Amino acid sequence: MAIVVQKYGGSSVADVERIGIVADRVAATKASGRDVVVVVSAMGDTTDELLALARRVSPNPSRRELDMLLTAGERIAMALLSMALQERGVPAVSFTGSQSGIMTNDAHTNARIVEVRPFRVQDELARGKVVIVAGYQGVSYKREVTTLGRGGSDTTAVALAAALGAEGCEIYSDVAGVYSADPRVVPEAQRLAEISYEEMQELAEAGARVLNAQAVEFAKARNIAIYARATAGGDEETVVRRHAPRAPGCVVGIASETGLVLLCLARGDLGELVPLLERLDARPACGKQLRFEGPLGASLVLSLEDLHDFEALRADLRAHLPGVSVVEGIGAVSAIGAGINASFHNVRKAIRLLDELETPVLGVATSSFRISLLIEEAKVPDAVRRLHRGLVETT
Amino acid sequence: MAIVVQKYGGSSVADVERIGIVADRVAATKASGRDVVVVVSAMGDTTDELLALARRVSPNPSRRELDMLLTAGERIAMALLSMALQERGVPAVSFTGSQSGIMTNDAHTNARIVEVRPFRVQDELARGKVVIVAGYQGVSYKREVTTLGRGGSDTTAVALAAALGAEGCEIYSDVAGVYSADPRVVPEAQRLAEISYEEMQELAEAGARVLNAQAVEFAKARNIAIYARATAGGDEETVVRRHAPRAPGCVVGIASETGLVLLCLARGDLGELVPLLERLDARPACGKQLRFEGPLGASLVLSLEDLHDFEALRADLRAHLPGVSVVEGIGAVSAIGAGINASFHNVRKAIRLLDELETPVLGVATSSFRISLLIEEAKVPDAVRRLHRGLVETT
Repeated sequence: MAIVVQKYGGSSVADVERIGIVADRVAATKASGRDVVVVVSAMGDTTDELLALARRVSPNPSRRELDMLLTAGERIAMALLSMALQERGVPAVSFTGSQSGIMTNDAHTNARIVEVRPFRVQDELARGKVVIVAGYQGVSYKREVTTLGRGGSDTTAVALAAALGAEGCEIYSDVAGVYSADPRVVPEAQRLAEISYEEMQELAEAGARVLNAQAVEFAKARNIAIYARATAGGDEETVVRRHAPRAPGCVVGIASETGLVLLCLARGDLGELVPLLERLDARPACGKQLRFEGPLGASLVLSLEDLHDFEALRADLRAHLPGVSVVEGIGAVSAIGAGINASFHNVRKAIRLLDELETPVLGVATSSFRISLLIEEAKVPDAVRRLHRGLVETT
Repeated sequence: MAIVVQKYGGSSVADVERIGIVADRVAATKASGRDVVVVVSAMGDTTDELLALARRVSPNPSRRELDMLLTAGERIAMALLSMALQERGVPAVSFTGSQSGIMTNDAHTNARIVEVRPFRVQDELARGKVVIVAGYQGVSYKREVTTLGRGGSDTTAVALAAALGAEGCEIYSDVAGVYSADPRVVPEAQRLAEISYEEMQELAEAGARVLNAQAVEFAKARNIAIYARATAGGDEETVVRRHAPRAPGCVVGIASETGLVLLCLARGDLGELVPLLERLDARPACGKQLRFEGPLGASLVLSLEDLHDFEALRADLRAHLPGVSVVEGIGAVSAIGAGINASFHNVRKAIRLLDELETPVLGVATSSFRISLLIEEAKVPDAVRRLHRGLVETT
């Protein structure tokens, strides 16, 4: 029987009523004759609330204990959804990440899935049950509970879809798909009917929160189509798949992030900085790290979100690398599209657009799919709108 | 090194401030040169709140999913306590019931511990860490998450103390020990300096909530002394141990329970009733079950607390055993003491005392440690005070 994996985010299961709506939708999918695996996040703001509790107990809590704490959230959501399905006469069973066979490395709070052994999920599907799986969590080869980082439930869903040979992976959220920019910032933003894995990955790494970058990477490796849809229903969706026909050099979207820190180093300091970062377990995601080393020295961008203990880093730098200057309040705007840098056209135009806004560009990084520009944090919303108008709406 | 197991109940870890107080106490115990294992319950009313959420989703939720849901509670408390200890410079690590090796049968929501394999706990103690263990939960041989029933964290603590060869098991709560009756009902109730396992077990089974009956049974089997103390501190305690010197026939305490249901059956109906009860997974604890079968028929007492689906039982009875009458609003008062029934003196006196209160006795059951009297629920507080005055204060 065809298997479909559906993932519902925190706002889709924020209260008992919304859990009921999700249960109705899952029941309808099951009734259509498919086997259904449902991946859920924690209810509403549960994860942030637990995190706030932890910070009250300890300003810099151990990552291992944070993972133990935060995984309570999905446990509550998945058990309630399973009960709601059973109440509707649909046999269901919930499994933790560990019970579902989501094996990860031991990078607590930001673990990577290394293998999926979904034997218990398969057994229960064979018994005709809907299987609810806790998103965002796994178990390491050291038998420790781990979490996959923000947006990790998407990764759980795609990894399970791949391991189960599912026909597709449906990701439900408040928004009906992927847009050319955050519609709350850019009212003119358009839903993309299709987008390639690479473009989606770059958008996610550049700050778009609609889909998780690691999830897209998994989908690409196993060729799983992702359908991004609204929990509220409707036909609108974005399909993330291998080929998304588009004109070369076309800019598909603008993404942005804030809360960045720029470290400016004298020449040669980079070699000493790296061990300091490693000691603090600071692992900037590749999308959040711009690095230039030239005759004048090097600069490095870190995200506060990934820096669990910024104060410790600051103290370390003062003690060991007093020449490093730390600039806070940095943001980045990025334009994404396959072949975007085939010529210098787009990067030149982007810099000119920001110049018109009187926004100094503090750094530039490009890849074959992306142009990222570092600017002052406060300028980010205006810059996103300007780049969307100048690069997306015109092409 | 000597090992001590300390258990802190839900009210002792109800908020971040109280978790800090517990962390200070644990840190002091560790500093005194002992290895410390801490068993925690869920914070405050978390378990009841989760249960209420479940009832909103489904009036009769699956017990397996209830266990998945409820075990989120201890997970939160134990991770926060571990962080609080680390914040105080005390190395600590938290483990779930499963990680601690608490193996149970598969009786969801009311599982029994069948074996404790505390290898990970021992490894971490050997590394000098305080080990925090989730109370109330275990894992079945089917690898399913289970819970031990109300008060089950006491059982976790005693079972771990036994498996680790601990020098004792300290149970911390709002009350400094075990009293001759609930002090909120009987202001004259006295703290018992010592009590035997058997007496404590009978008190707990008869409704005293201060210690869990299964926990005491475990302590008795392994000869572990239990020290019941107040989280707030102070020297007062009750020691539960093998020998508690006392005059024979002395009544040590009065306990009570409410929310009972009396089933009155015609002769021969009992054989048909039992399969109905089993089908509903109704497992009255031995202390809550009084059974008489005589020429007039049989009667059976069940506790609503153990009956997860009383409405289903009522419907079954109507359909299959229409002759059974169901009386709700029943309570029980019990007097406990070693040798209490060596003569008829105490049972005669108890019935006379209730008679003076104009409280009809609907049933009597006795054991070598206990006299239990069934009465109307509303009369229970008065009856407890009268029995305490007449049987405890006078001896």
